[in-house]
Amino acid sequence: MVYSVIGTGGVGGYYGASLARAGKEVHFLFHKDYAYVREHGLQVNSWRGNFRLDAPNAYASTSDMPRSDVVIVALKSVNNPLLRELLPPLLKSDTLVVLIENGIGVEAQVQAMFPELRLAAGLAFICSAKTRPGIIDHQDLGHISIAAYTEGAQERAEAVVRDFVDAGIRAVSAEYLEARWKKQVWNMPFNGMTVALNTSTDALLAHPATAALIREQMLEVIAAARALGVERIDESFADKMLEMTLSMKPYAPSMKLDHDFGRPMEIGAIYTEALRQAREAGCPMHKLEMLEAELRFIEANRTSP
Amino acid sequence: MVYSVIGTGGVGGYYGASLARAGKEVHFLFHKDYAYVREHGLQVNSWRGNFRLDAPNAYASTSDMPRSDVVIVALKSVNNPLLRELLPPLLKSDTLVVLIENGIGVEAQVQAMFPELRLAAGLAFICSAKTRPGIIDHQDLGHISIAAYTEGAQERAEAVVRDFVDAGIRAVSAEYLEARWKKQVWNMPFNGMTVALNTSTDALLAHPATAALIREQMLEVIAAARALGVERIDESFADKMLEMTLSMKPYAPSMKLDHDFGRPMEIGAIYTEALRQAREAGCPMHKLEMLEAELRFIEANRTSP
Repeated sequence: MVYSVIGTGGVGGYYGASLARAGKEVHFLFHKDYAYVREHGLQVNSWRGNFRLDAPNAYASTSDMPRSDVVIVALKSVNNPLLRELLPPLLKSDTLVVLIENGIGVEAQVQAMFPELRLAAGLAFICSAKTRPGIIDHQDLGHISIAAYTEGAQERAEAVVRDFVDAGIRAVSAEYLEARWKKQVWNMPFNGMTVALNTSTDALLAHPATAALIREQMLEVIAAARALGVERIDESFADKMLEMTLSMKPYAPSMKLDHDFGRPMEIGAIYTEALRQAREAGCPMHKLEMLEAELRFIEANRTSP
Repeated sequence: MVYSVIGTGGVGGYYGASLARAGKEVHFLFHKDYAYVREHGLQVNSWRGNFRLDAPNAYASTSDMPRSDVVIVALKSVNNPLLRELLPPLLKSDTLVVLIENGIGVEAQVQAMFPELRLAAGLAFICSAKTRPGIIDHQDLGHISIAAYTEGAQERAEAVVRDFVDAGIRAVSAEYLEARWKKQVWNMPFNGMTVALNTSTDALLAHPATAALIREQMLEVIAAARALGVERIDESFADKMLEMTLSMKPYAPSMKLDHDFGRPMEIGAIYTEALRQAREAGCPMHKLEMLEAELRFIEANRTSP
């Protein structure tokens, strides 16, 4: 299978480079660091072992890239409107697009642009960021769930899981709604709270008041997920996520980095649509509604970094 | 009636000085600015007209003050433990102590120290602060509700209301539980949110997300108050408080000033006890619970100013 990666950042770059290292054919779209990567290659500094691709298939435009069997899209959700132009040169009739993005509603958004497109969701539990041009800093974790979204996408999604596993990644097939909402259980509390209180995951869990608050926010997500039809989730999943976080190195989630660097925050994908669906299902997430309001205020009132 | 004021700050100083200007006998306890006031008097810069007391009855210790018919206590609630030592020299058998303080549970706290004491609550809607030694800066509003707490305090509380009115203050008698919780409708959202988002009341109401949040938090307080037996309050009171706030000059509530100057915040009196009572009454205030947790985190993690 031919892979393409749109959004070669901390997440897309790590998974794509891992596939390439394992011998898969992977083509990478670069933006600002295209020239750097052409000259110096792509370096992955990973807690699981550093490696580098000396001469990755690097491109500055998708129109130069080959049509692909699998397109890994690892953009920020706020940049999804770019897909209207970026995707068509890569598509075959049976291409599977795997959206490794945060939030609720992102597949529906892309499906609305491309009604015939086969889509899957990639739910990555990974601490990774591109901190300098051409250098990916993979700090912790790395497992990913892949879930078919479109009917008919199942078979290829499973093939992708096998390729990921071959590449040494802990990947599993998952049920779409369950996987998306399970990711939200971590994302909704930690992304916003690290911004709202200008702190890190470990500091939030170190104070009893915010540790309790984070858990209550997780329970709000779990209750909403159940109201929306996710059956295989209960309170124990919150404790699992808290344990996972306690075992992680102190970490600034993507929204915290976005905020610190003055980039748009993914408030819409991580909060707005999820809160709307939960309220519609009769299970409003009160504390996370408050968090969304705080984030909207913070984004509107921040000065440039 | 002989008045004493413990806590001659922006609030206690304004009301006490107004009574003194109207010819009442008022004795003031000063702390840091005792020497300054002895030399320079007490200046009140008020939007209703400036005035000064050239030679107020100023003291550095309550043991030098006369026993009083009415003691106005306008301390921060966090300093209430000081009353154990400060109050006894001022007390007669029928002294009324008027607690002009924020929060829920403050009268019960003082009553526990002095089981025989007659207590009333003073609920001040006033923007006033002592910004420099001996100078009170009264920026806006000024009305006050006075509510008997102890049985047998009613008559003297009404006499105090009459004296306040004589002194040109908009004062009314009120029912205790109703008055305390009505004050909370303003205090709980604005005190904490200006700290949590490091902003002012007008900025919070200028953004649609936080304006909606503030109103929802007010409705949480109103629902809790009703669950606790306050009958004469409904959603329209939130709109009244919002209108009042919109008409005010941009304002930093007392908790914001406390935070900015590195002083303890009144989290216990304004949040903890109120949240506990609401939850016990089966009407938890979800968003305000979150706010309390944020404030606890902020207080624990702040560095000295």
